[in-house]
Amino acid sequence: MATKHILIVPGDGIGQEVTAVGKLVLDKIAAKYGHTFTYDEALIGHVAIEATGVPLPDESLEKMRKSDAVLFGAVGHPKYDNDPSAKVRPEQGLLKMRKELGLYANLRPIKLFDELLGASSIKPEILKGADILFFRELTGDIYFGEKGRKNDGDTAYDIAEYSRYEVERIARKAFEAARTRGKKLCSVDKANVIETSRLWREVIQKVALEYPDVQVEHQFVDATAMLLIKDPRRFDVVVTANLFGDILTDEASQIAGSMGMLASASIGDGTGVYEPIHGSAHDITGKGVANPLASVLSAALLLDISFGMKEESEAVINAVDKVLKNGFRSRDIADATTPADKILGTAAMGEQVLLHI
Amino acid sequence: MATKHILIVPGDGIGQEVTAVGKLVLDKIAAKYGHTFTYDEALIGHVAIEATGVPLPDESLEKMRKSDAVLFGAVGHPKYDNDPSAKVRPEQGLLKMRKELGLYANLRPIKLFDELLGASSIKPEILKGADILFFRELTGDIYFGEKGRKNDGDTAYDIAEYSRYEVERIARKAFEAARTRGKKLCSVDKANVIETSRLWREVIQKVALEYPDVQVEHQFVDATAMLLIKDPRRFDVVVTANLFGDILTDEASQIAGSMGMLASASIGDGTGVYEPIHGSAHDITGKGVANPLASVLSAALLLDISFGMKEESEAVINAVDKVLKNGFRSRDIADATTPADKILGTAAMGEQVLLHI
Ligand SMILES: CC(C)[C@H](C(=O)O)[C@@H](O)C(=O)O
Ligand SMILES: CC(C)[C@H](C(=O)O)[C@@H](O)C(=O)O
Repeated sequence: MATKHILIVPGDGIGQEVTAVGKLVLDKIAAKYGHTFTYDEALIGHVAIEATGVPLPDESLEKMRKSDAVLFGAVGHPKYDNDPSAKVRPEQGLLKMRKELGLYANLRPIKLFDELLGASSIKPEILKGADILFFRELTGDIYFGEKGRKNDGDTAYDIAEYSRYEVERIARKAFEAARTRGKKLCSVDKANVIETSRLWREVIQKVALEYPDVQVEHQFVDATAMLLIKDPRRFDVVVTANLFGDILTDEASQIAGSMGMLASASIGDGTGVYEPIHGSAHDITGKGVANPLASVLSAALLLDISFGMKEESEAVINAVDKVLKNGFRSRDIADATTPADKILGTAAMGEQVLLHI
Repeated sequence: MATKHILIVPGDGIGQEVTAVGKLVLDKIAAKYGHTFTYDEALIGHVAIEATGVPLPDESLEKMRKSDAVLFGAVGHPKYDNDPSAKVRPEQGLLKMRKELGLYANLRPIKLFDELLGASSIKPEILKGADILFFRELTGDIYFGEKGRKNDGDTAYDIAEYSRYEVERIARKAFEAARTRGKKLCSVDKANVIETSRLWREVIQKVALEYPDVQVEHQFVDATAMLLIKDPRRFDVVVTANLFGDILTDEASQIAGSMGMLASASIGDGTGVYEPIHGSAHDITGKGVANPLASVLSAALLLDISFGMKEESEAVINAVDKVLKNGFRSRDIADATTPADKILGTAAMGEQVLLHI
C-alpha cells in the first residue's frame, strides 16, 4: 500500500481523450490494491502555447519534477506543420521535457496481443510470437544539436552529436534488459557513413565485453527497416539512436497491429514519463473514436517501472487482453469481420477495461 | 540502331555475380535490336582498395565520365563494418562517385510483379496494385556534411546540410514524374524537429505552385515508415532526403517481395548509374545463389532512362515477368510452394531471362 503523486499531462489532440482513460485505469488500480494515488495536471504543446505563449511553461516542468511519475498524451498541431518558419512549436515542449528531465532512454515494447494477429498488414505467420523491446536514445542526436540557416537563409543545417557517455548509459540499460529476456541485442546504426554511428558502434562493442552472456549484432538502419518487416521474430532487444529509433519504432507499430496499441516509457535520472507512441491525430480529435489502449498500456508501464508494482501492471495488461478476447475493438484495430456492435469508442473501450481490473 | 559505350562496375560481393548477368542482358538486347554496345570495366569499393589503395581510383572516375551509362553492382565488406576506426572504406568510393558525377536524383521504382504477391511478408490484399516511385536525394544531407570528433575523440558529430538549390532540382524531377503517373506527390521530412527538413518543406511548397495539377502531401518520416507497410497503395511518387530515402526504400523493398528484385537509377548532370538496391551480401557471395533480377531490371532502367530505348527496356521487364510466370525463382523469392527444380541459381536465372528476350 503506497502513496504516489501522478502528474497527468494530456497535451494536444487525442492526447486529451486517451489520457483521461489512462487516469481512470490508475484510479481503479489504486482502489483495488489499496494504494493512494494523488493527481495534478499540467500543460504542454499547442494547448500550452495558446494559454501561456510557450510550449512547456516552467510551472509544468516544476510539477513534473515533483511528481512520482508522469502520464503523458501527445503534442502537435497541423497549424505549425504547414508553416516551416514558425518559431514556437508544440514539439519544442516535448523535446524540452525530455532534456530537462534527463529522459535519455525511451523503452518501446512491441508485442502483439494474440487477438490482433489479423489486424496487421503483415502476415500472421510472420508475426506470431514476435516480441521486441526497443531502447531509443532520447536526449541526443540531430534532435538536440545546433541547427540553423546560413547563406541568407538559403542553406539549412542540423548537427548530430553523441558523446561516449551518452551512448554508454543507454547501452547499459539495453544490455541489462537483454539479460532478463532473450539475451540478444541488436544495435542499429549507419556506421558505414556517419561518424556518430561509428562512435556508437565502438561504445556498444566495448560495453558488450561486460555482458558476455548477451549475443550482440550490429545492423545498418536501412537493413533493419527491411528486416523488421521481413522477419520480426529475429529481434529481441534493439538499441538505437534518437532519429533512427523514431523511425523504426513507428514502423514496428505495424507488428503490434496498430500504432494505437503501443505504449512507451521514457526514463533517466528522475521522474519517468509514460506515453502512447501515437501522436495527437487531429484528424480524429474530439470524435470520441481514438483507441485508448496505448494510454492504458502506458499506465501499466508506469506502474511497473516507476512504482515497481508488477502485479498491478499485469492486472492492467490482462484486462486489455480480456477486452480484446471478448471481441471488442476500437476503429483502428477493427477489421471486416468485426461485428458493428463490437466497435467501441474511446470511453466505452475504457469502461470495458475497467470492468476487468 | 545506336552505338553506346557502357561501363560495367561490379564492385564487391555479389555485385560481381549479378552484374555479369545484367551485362548478358544488355548484349542480348544489342543483338536483337541491332545496336552496338561496347563495354569496359572499372574498379570500386573493397576490390579497388585491395588493388590500388583507394575506394574509387581516378581511372575509374575517368572511365565513368566518358561512358554513356554505368551498370553498377554494390560496395561493402564486413571487415570495415566491424572496425569503426577504419579510415579507408568501400562506401567512400560509392559516395565519391555520386558526388563527382553529380548524381543527385536516385529513382527507385517499387512495383510488385504479380507472381510475387505471395513472396512478401505483407498480406497480398494490402500489396496488390501498389506502385511507388521514390526520388531519393543523393548528394547532400548528413552523408556529405562535415563529420568528425572532438573532446579527445569522446564526442562525434555529423553535419546535415541542404541548400534551396539542391532541394529544388530534385523536387522538379519528382513533380515532373508525378505528372506522368498518378499525379500525387508525397514529400517526406521531419520538419517538426530539424531545420534541413523545414527548408525542404518550404522549397517543396514553393515548387508545388508550378505544378497545380499534382496533389501534394507532406508526411513526417516516422509516420511514413508506418504508412508504407500499413497502406502502400496510398503512395504514388515519394520524394525525400538522402538519409530518409536510404531507410524508406530498403523498407519498401518488402512491398516488392524482396530486395533482390529492386533496381535503381542515379541521374543528374552527366552519366547515369544503374544499380540494384541490395548490397554486397557477403554471406552469400560466391555461392552462385544471388538473385540477378535487380541487376537485370537495372539494365532495363539504363536502356530506358539513359538511352531512351523504351521498347528494349520493356522487352527486358517482360522477360523477367515471363520467367516468374513460368514458376522460376531464386532462393530469396521462393516460398514453401516452390518446387525444388524451379529454384535457380544466379546464372541459370539469367539464362531463363535471356531465353525470353
Ligand atoms: C513529436 C515528435 C517530436 C516526436 C519525436 O520525433 O520524437 C514523436 O515522433 C515521438 O516519437 O515521440
Ligand atoms: C552502401 C551505403 C553507403 C549506401 C547508402 O547508404 O547510400 C546504400 O545503403 C545505398 O542505399 O545505396
